[in-house]
Amino acid sequence: MDTNNSAAEGPELAEPYLREVLDMAGLAVEYVRAGGNTLYQRGADGGEIAIADFAGGYGSVLLGHNHPDIVRCARELLEAGTPVHAQFSRHPYANRLASELNRIVHRELGTDEPYYAIFANTGAEAVEAAVKHAEMDRGMRIVALGEELQRSADSARDAVAGGSVVADRVLRRFGVSAAAGPAAAFAELERHLTEHNTAQLERPPLFLALEGGFHGKLGTSVQLTHNEAYRTPFRSLAAQARFVPWERPEALKEIHERDRGVCFELVVADGQVDVAEREFPVFCAFLLEPIQGEGGIHVLTAEFAEAIQRFCEEIDCPVIVDEIQAGMGRTGTLLASSQVGLRGDYYTLAKTLGGGIAKTSVMLVRETRYRREFEIVHSSTFAKDSFSCTVALKVLELLETDGGAYRRVEERGAALRAMLESVRADFPEQVQEVRGKGLMLGLEFRDQSDAESEAVRGLAGSGLFGYFLAGHLLREHRVRTFPTASAVNTLRFEPSIELADEEIARLETGLRDICALLRDGDGSRLAGAATG
Amino acid sequence: MDTNNSAAEGPELAEPYLREVLDMAGLAVEYVRAGGNTLYQRGADGGEIAIADFAGGYGSVLLGHNHPDIVRCARELLEAGTPVHAQFSRHPYANRLASELNRIVHRELGTDEPYYAIFANTGAEAVEAAVKHAEMDRGMRIVALGEELQRSADSARDAVAGGSVVADRVLRRFGVSAAAGPAAAFAELERHLTEHNTAQLERPPLFLALEGGFHGKLGTSVQLTHNEAYRTPFRSLAAQARFVPWERPEALKEIHERDRGVCFELVVADGQVDVAEREFPVFCAFLLEPIQGEGGIHVLTAEFAEAIQRFCEEIDCPVIVDEIQAGMGRTGTLLASSQVGLRGDYYTLAKTLGGGIAKTSVMLVRETRYRREFEIVHSSTFAKDSFSCTVALKVLELLETDGGAYRRVEERGAALRAMLESVRADFPEQVQEVRGKGLMLGLEFRDQSDAESEAVRGLAGSGLFGYFLAGHLLREHRVRTFPTASAVNTLRFEPSIELADEEIARLETGLRDICALLRDGDGSRLAGAATG
Repeated sequence: MDTNNSAAEGPELAEPYLREVLDMAGLAVEYVRAGGNTLYQRGADGGEIAIADFAGGYGSVLLGHNHPDIVRCARELLEAGTPVHAQFSRHPYANRLASELNRIVHRELGTDEPYYAIFANTGAEAVEAAVKHAEMDRGMRIVALGEELQRSADSARDAVAGGSVVADRVLRRFGVSAAAGPAAAFAELERHLTEHNTAQLERPPLFLALEGGFHGKLGTSVQLTHNEAYRTPFRSLAAQARFVPWERPEALKEIHERDRGVCFELVVADGQVDVAEREFPVFCAFLLEPIQGEGGIHVLTAEFAEAIQRFCEEIDCPVIVDEIQAGMGRTGTLLASSQVGLRGDYYTLAKTLGGGIAKTSVMLVRETRYRREFEIVHSSTFAKDSFSCTVALKVLELLETDGGAYRRVEERGAALRAMLESVRADFPEQVQEVRGKGLMLGLEFRDQSDAESEAVRGLAGSGLFGYFLAGHLLREHRVRTFPTASAVNTLRFEPSIELADEEIARLETGLRDICALLRDGDGSRLAGAATG
Repeated sequence: MDTNNSAAEGPELAEPYLREVLDMAGLAVEYVRAGGNTLYQRGADGGEIAIADFAGGYGSVLLGHNHPDIVRCARELLEAGTPVHAQFSRHPYANRLASELNRIVHRELGTDEPYYAIFANTGAEAVEAAVKHAEMDRGMRIVALGEELQRSADSARDAVAGGSVVADRVLRRFGVSAAAGPAAAFAELERHLTEHNTAQLERPPLFLALEGGFHGKLGTSVQLTHNEAYRTPFRSLAAQARFVPWERPEALKEIHERDRGVCFELVVADGQVDVAEREFPVFCAFLLEPIQGEGGIHVLTAEFAEAIQRFCEEIDCPVIVDEIQAGMGRTGTLLASSQVGLRGDYYTLAKTLGGGIAKTSVMLVRETRYRREFEIVHSSTFAKDSFSCTVALKVLELLETDGGAYRRVEERGAALRAMLESVRADFPEQVQEVRGKGLMLGLEFRDQSDAESEAVRGLAGSGLFGYFLAGHLLREHRVRTFPTASAVNTLRFEPSIELADEEIARLETGLRDICALLRDGDGSRLAGAATG
């Protein structure tokens, strides 16, 4: 079924090592066409072989590959000579898209607070934009805090100079001698406090994110992505995150206590100068996914979401909800997080926003957090263009018309989930758990590292366990899926709403086949491509 | 001519402040169609108004807006149901594109060393990928260095223990007493050296870049972009760069002396243990543009390029040549830097690579620097797709066929430049300089901050000088251009090869009009949109 590279193509120059790894797992096939829930390979006889696509472009084709209405929209734009490259002009299509996103977000969140839209081209770029905005906002809050501290110090100094208040209690606390007189002692006190406060102000920001979280692989965003293999080689490039263990809200307080910053403010009360503690905003933002995609299809609970929300409100840390994989209708609502009552200060959307054809993403930020100065310092040549904004509007139209797409997600998701659960019920020794929501589901296999079969143990120890299973499904069952990249025992299923019953049945056959092979210790068949 | 936002559209949610700024300069017009070198507005009578486009999508449409062959290619891909979302499969189109880029790069550089291709979606993403790769490579070189230092220490320790060599000279140098015996003294010496070396190993990387340079606005790349307004609000997010003054090669040595790192290696020679100095790779990469686009259209000279190249070879620092704006044929060759004899370890290409329709970019890295492990830790959902790779192949075909596009760049560039020089010759008091190459030209106006006219001084002091000039050209002369964003006295001209003589003539009329207005102190007409 595989059509190998011919000599005429020359050596592989676009990621040859990845090609080797994919070859080993039996995944290095070529797709020649895509439509609906299907990707097509070319068979030996020249005919097409239909592969049921449960990978779904890592969440990018909820409406199906090459949806006819989206293709028509794209073709019409091209035929009409749409002004793709018209930077720094009016972009009414971008504003229409932002308005429509607001309309839906308002409905789902039950608010009418505007969310401003900064467009980008990829999910990772939207995360970078959100993080940059949050850092700009943090910087402006720090400046404002510094000015407040200065005003308070000025008032206190004046009050001491005027003789109306004394500072002896605070002088004692900071070990400043009053011997040189009130003015000199106060100046010495101020130097102490300024030194402390300046040290706080110079601390680099910290981010909060969840263990297992994935937020992209650009310079800054990859440091917010938990997987160490992706993150640590580049750790010197960007600000760091503290990773919060899943469903352990008590860890929030521990991290806060360890890393928080406090500035000292001089205040006057009851005839005395005193020192008040002001929280220094060292935490730039808390990033999280409503359902972890790369991390193993883990669904954020309403309780954990509420704990995070309350904690972030207490320390005035904005919440960036990364809806790049779970959002855009994949779980039956535009924002998957709206189902657990989470209210983001920021949202990032991408993948299906481009309808499987355009590359576009957006960062939404609520008005109360918005810094309009950001618009002057951030931009992108490719972003906010007529082509991708118009395609994205068509995607929203298809999602929203009569709510049909959302219902279809729920109905297809329930059918797929019922099948996965039936496999789990029949193979409790092989399947650990079924997780997810809507059309974002995962099936976790039990760890096979102590399997009786040496071949199965070998697969488990390869670090590519789920990739070998995916290779088997592709080779033997014409089903495309992948493991979640940071938790390779979990296969992910993110098909489109075009998913057919027959495809669910084919996946079921494949999964039962895998479970039987694992049960029987037949690792060599699972590793088919590797062994020949 | 301007068609303003109607109430029906609702409030601006996609960058309202930017819209205000553009409105002020008379630039917030809506384009409804694009073709060749022309963008079209809708006039009051409903007819189209043709605007000659010298902005050229900030370098993205060298072949013209919506080039018919590229549009046809895109439409055919859509009609054929191209598998846009087929991540982690074979991507022969990406390999063909990488091969074709190699063929051209080899021709221009006179080498046959392969350059491996990592695809991304935007110029900034390609820079992030290059920087990440360089940092991974640096990390692996540091590990190798650490192992070498350890092996050397082991050998020296063995030699001392065996009694064949003595260490007294180096012990004296590091103030270690020999009293406790050779083994203990050597252990103490090792502790000293390890402490020093570990401190080096923990230093964050530094980047080298040029003053005026622009490499994007994502978290990491924006720290390599010189403009402080773009960079400093986000400085805590990412590793820092040292910015080298333009054409001051002697500054390279100064920066190196100040920031270099040295590790100590124990070596044995002539019966003595001695300490050798090993350069620690603190400099991760040197980034530069062959022609600075945002920085004011400054052309890198062969002499400065050679000095940088030599310096980087001496300290083993890879050179990342950012060809995002100047490359892709804009100056008559695929790589603008090949004309000044610069040889990059990395190249980044974007903009015209997508033909004005697709969003794609590539980072090329030469084999001697390549770390294939990078392929496993870096990826992007949208990158390396069939649609944009195939469009990019079509772009290369159009550029390369009979060399016609390159010749057209040279011929049109010469005609445009001759016109700009004639304006400069006639208005030496208003025009400072004409700079650039091919179809990447800039015209710098003299600073007007001490102009006699208060209105002109007002424009000069607004920080938006070139934007007001651009507004005037658009309003009065149906010409679209922008200042270089980090040097707003310079207007940039990056038209397509479809540029017509009539458009050059129209720009000439506009520039002469501006020069006359500046000469006559008529700032209010230049600020037309702002004053009514």
